[in-house]
Amino acid sequence: MITDRYEICFSGSGGQGIIIAAIILAEAAGVYDGKHVCQTQTYGPEVRGGASKAEVVISNKPIDYPKAMKPDLLLALDQAACNTYFSDLKPQGLLVVDATLVDQIPTSRAVSIPFTDMARKELGKALVANIVALGAVGYLSQVVSLKSLEAALMAKVPKGTGNINLKALRAGIEAAERVDLKALPRSITREEEEL
Amino acid sequence: MITDRYEICFSGSGGQGIIIAAIILAEAAGVYDGKHVCQTQTYGPEVRGGASKAEVVISNKPIDYPKAMKPDLLLALDQAACNTYFSDLKPQGLLVVDATLVDQIPTSRAVSIPFTDMARKELGKALVANIVALGAVGYLSQVVSLKSLEAALMAKVPKGTGNINLKALRAGIEAAERVDLKALPRSITREEEEL
Repeated sequence: MITDRYEICFSGSGGQGIIIAAIILAEAAGVYDGKHVCQTQTYGPEVRGGASKAEVVISNKPIDYPKAMKPDLLLALDQAACNTYFSDLKPQGLLVVDATLVDQIPTSRAVSIPFTDMARKELGKALVANIVALGAVGYLSQVVSLKSLEAALMAKVPKGTGNINLKALRAGIEAAERVDLKALPRSITREEEEL
Repeated sequence: MITDRYEICFSGSGGQGIIIAAIILAEAAGVYDGKHVCQTQTYGPEVRGGASKAEVVISNKPIDYPKAMKPDLLLALDQAACNTYFSDLKPQGLLVVDATLVDQIPTSRAVSIPFTDMARKELGKALVANIVALGAVGYLSQVVSLKSLEAALMAKVPKGTGNINLKALRAGIEAAERVDLKALPRSITREEEEL
């Protein structure tokens, strides 16, 4: 649900398709749903470790500051990215990890789905793990319509790959639908640590 | 030459490959040259007309505000984008247009190169016009090393397309090398309009 501003951080290592996933989500929300959206990559000496990230900020109002400050949702496609960016997450934010590549999950307020295994086994192509993850993120964020997400995906992927990408997106959505968010702790901070 | 901050705006219509060109330039400057770089897309109701843009901000210092405020260089790949974004350009900024698609050039402080015609005739593939333009922008901006631009391009393009993309980049660089920037007026404002 969007109030003023919803921030999503896609993180992983180079080559995992983080940026394209972020762009598709941004176009779904911005071009198709008509929200205000900024999508940003930051590079350079300040980028921590080998982890890379792509950010999407979505709002019903014009966006003053386009970068994510405290993400509402952090997608971590590998352990390094999870370790690097977890501390940025909002206390009531949601961590989403690739269970295939992230063993050590720093909070129980996390959704762990084997994106890479699903891409490899169900779709026969590990490369579409980012699109499986995009489906899950799109569903869990509740800030973008799934119809728009499909449309933005179809407009963006190379010719001849529409079918497998659509299957990947839907597999991610279905896996996320099976998650019971109400069973998760409400905050990433443990209760005794809460103020 | 970078002082504190150099802003580039890539503009055109959807499907012209604006975003990927901006990302490659951003990765060249950020990942390979070690500069501070932010690369941003903005979507939504505030986006003017049918024109789309992708921005790159490059600095030697950490970047406080990641969006382009007054671009130092505006690339316009079609007339609509040129009309829409020209007024954003800094007074001493440089306009670079695709001569194939932009007839009405609003300033004589402009470099006009037929990116689309070059892509079609010299490279046999109109789709790489964005990479020809990227080569010209990389050369004219003087904020990124051409070696880094090649490396970032090679890391980003799909397998099997490295050769044509590299030729496209180099064609754009060579076309830009033939431009005599000193022959251009120093400002996009005509002298009688200057304060």
